[in-house]
Amino acid sequence: MKWIRYYREKNIYYGIADLQNQSVTEVNGNPFEEYEHKKTVPFSDIKLLTPFEPKTFYAAGTNYEEHIRKVAELIGEQPNIPEKADIGYRANNALIAHDETIIIPKDATEKVQYEAELVVVIGKKAFQVKESDSLQYVFGYTIGNDVSERSWQKLDRTLWRAKNSDTFKPMGPWIETEANLDDMITSVHLNGEKTIEFKTNEMIFGVEKYIHEITKYITLYPGDMIWMGTDGEGKNMSDGDTCEITISGIGTLKNHVRKIQ
Amino acid sequence: MKWIRYYREKNIYYGIADLQNQSVTEVNGNPFEEYEHKKTVPFSDIKLLTPFEPKTFYAAGTNYEEHIRKVAELIGEQPNIPEKADIGYRANNALIAHDETIIIPKDATEKVQYEAELVVVIGKKAFQVKESDSLQYVFGYTIGNDVSERSWQKLDRTLWRAKNSDTFKPMGPWIETEANLDDMITSVHLNGEKTIEFKTNEMIFGVEKYIHEITKYITLYPGDMIWMGTDGEGKNMSDGDTCEITISGIGTLKNHVRKIQ
Repeated sequence: MKWIRYYREKNIYYGIADLQNQSVTEVNGNPFEEYEHKKTVPFSDIKLLTPFEPKTFYAAGTNYEEHIRKVAELIGEQPNIPEKADIGYRANNALIAHDETIIIPKDATEKVQYEAELVVVIGKKAFQVKESDSLQYVFGYTIGNDVSERSWQKLDRTLWRAKNSDTFKPMGPWIETEANLDDMITSVHLNGEKTIEFKTNEMIFGVEKYIHEITKYITLYPGDMIWMGTDGEGKNMSDGDTCEITISGIGTLKNHVRKIQ
Repeated sequence: MKWIRYYREKNIYYGIADLQNQSVTEVNGNPFEEYEHKKTVPFSDIKLLTPFEPKTFYAAGTNYEEHIRKVAELIGEQPNIPEKADIGYRANNALIAHDETIIIPKDATEKVQYEAELVVVIGKKAFQVKESDSLQYVFGYTIGNDVSERSWQKLDRTLWRAKNSDTFKPMGPWIETEANLDDMITSVHLNGEKTIEFKTNEMIFGVEKYIHEITKYITLYPGDMIWMGTDGEGKNMSDGDTCEITISGIGTLKNHVRKIQ
């Protein structure tokens, strides 16, 4: 199932998308608690939002080896391959939906880059979960673009504006509940040209490991999410660009880019 | 006004506390949007919660000079006095209310310390706000205890379990809407004995500066909060302890401590 969230007639609803018929089965309630089917609405009547409003926004950050080496090279530091599955955070203010526009602040450098990431959506309250049980707590997967300004990433004490400036976290288009981690391939197209492709699940620490480690100390709740990091070398995004991230088995997240002049 | 949030008869309500009469004026709605007075309820009928559920949990982290030197000494690093008002993040999973219990995980060291912090509660949507206008966007103030496990703070790549283990973020008891920054004195009592006292507003970067800097890139929303950092040297908290943080003009946040054996 593909769960979406959207505006329709000045209200916000959840629904299950039917791509073939270009329609959505709208529900009362939400996918994390209780819901009942209400009616069918055509895609033309809705404005897509991020597929949910996360409770806590976890991010692995560095979780693929090649990417860590490439970013270190770019910002002139030594690569730092993590030895433990320490989790980080991003912020909800930066979230935008599929088809919305990434706004690059006026004083950003040209080094504003996409990062194509698998997003794990938690469906059940989880505490002290075994690695082998951890996927039972996953509701589904969506796609995230962890947009990053590399000069701020290097200069600042925290990742606040480098990664959390308004619009820097595109996410969507939906939560896919039936995808299989090992079948996924992540690819990015910048203005229609493929710039990278990698096996999504070839992470340093996988989804199961992260859920196990986080829940040693932290309760995960329905509606929490974990962004799993990205691989390879990014490319700069400029005013007028379109960035599309595809993860096979989930879908494609497309966003436009504008720079404030 | 002192805004509280609480359970009563299996529901969650906001209300305005009247300390003298030990009662609360319960409202329909919430203080950040619309509300209307409903009825008066005695304190004996309610179970206090954190005064609100923050949207995004911002934290200055290091924002008082003496504290930075003392923690650096404790964990064997050079003190790093910030040169810019870079903001960090904490996580909602760790929040507990006044009078609730800080649970220290079994494998934590003895270096689990309180940090007494002023919490700024945002009341209006704020973007690109001038320093001189910034206090207009503040709804009020409450008190936070930024509980920290110093060995994890040193060892881990992020502050995840050092500062965000479940129960590590006591906050409350209420949001005070009429406090004055320059009049505030922060003090901590551990088992009834005063361990520290400092002028709350003698920060490296003040509330106005932080709101101004954050909103250059980030929209602050009603219900966001900023924890402003702490001063001085912490003390370890052990099983059975009681930690009370007082900020004059706001109130006292009291929490018990238990260590899992």
